Amino acid sequence: MSRKIDEIDLKILKLLSENARYTYKELAEKLGTTRQRVSRRMDKLEKGGVVIKYTVIPDLNKLNYVHVILGLILRPTVDLDEVVKQLKSIEYVKIVEKTLGSHSLIVHLVGPNNMAFTEKMIRSIAKEIQGIDKMDITFVTEICKFEVI
Amino acid sequence: MSRKIDEIDLKILKLLSENARYTYKELAEKLGTTRQRVSRRMDKLEKGGVVIKYTVIPDLNKLNYVHVILGLILRPTVDLDEVVKQLKSIEYVKIVEKTLGSHSLIVHLVGPNNMAFTEKMIRSIAKEIQGIDKMDITFVTEICKFEVI
Repeated sequence: MSRKIDEIDLKILKLLSENARYTYKELAEKLGTTRQRVSRRMDKLEKGGVVIKYTVIPDLNKLNYVHVILGLILRPTVDLDEVVKQLKSIEYVKIVEKTLGSHSLIVHLVGPNNMAFTEKMIRSIAKEIQGIDKMDITFVTEICKFEVI
Repeated sequence: MSRKIDEIDLKILKLLSENARYTYKELAEKLGTTRQRVSRRMDKLEKGGVVIKYTVIPDLNKLNYVHVILGLILRPTVDLDEVVKQLKSIEYVKIVEKTLGSHSLIVHLVGPNNMAFTEKMIRSIAKEIQGIDKMDITFVTEICKFEVI
């Protein structure tokens, strides 16, 4: 927040988006700088909240999981923060994003790949979350491209 | 593919989903095993395509980027693989997922946070990709939860 993001920060983030497991040494070599400098910048990016997390993107199908994306349209009177709080507390709700446009919330569900459980996850959200006007339900079958920045 | 995913693989992936930068040593300590065993398993998960990538999830707003999610409905006669190929080749198209349900493709766009460029990205997809019947457009304003598995 305090400091502006510069070109070197962006280069570090771009490299980490390609492989978050690059060591400080590898990053420093690619950028022609020192490990200390890379480490200091990454610390700042992490503490400033620019880095939300370093994570793995798995092929959920190969893990025998189902990946469902819900696009929610909420009634205008609904307390969005309350809905977000409820959704966040559900174990199989993995991603919650506030959005503007066709949907007011995007919610990702991940669970065992069987239709009975999938139906249970979706129905329980439809039942427990108050104020859902419409729910678009989309099943991810294949990740064809995955980049970040 | 060859080998079935077991409980230890899942534990490794779960830990990496929380922090993809854990070293082999840290992972081994958390799992009560050796670095060699962790490294061997990760190799297999990577080579078998279970790991698509290790990446960083940044707060795109703090980077002054816009993050748009398009939910595409395509005409049934469309060649899906051709559409995917076209979309993948566009630099600002970061994620392409084949889906079933409300949408037949989910596409994520990331670009400089200004409305003129955003409009250009969206219109050029609407124009260049043949066979789009409907396009839901959603702007991500805040990531409230981000987990993977």
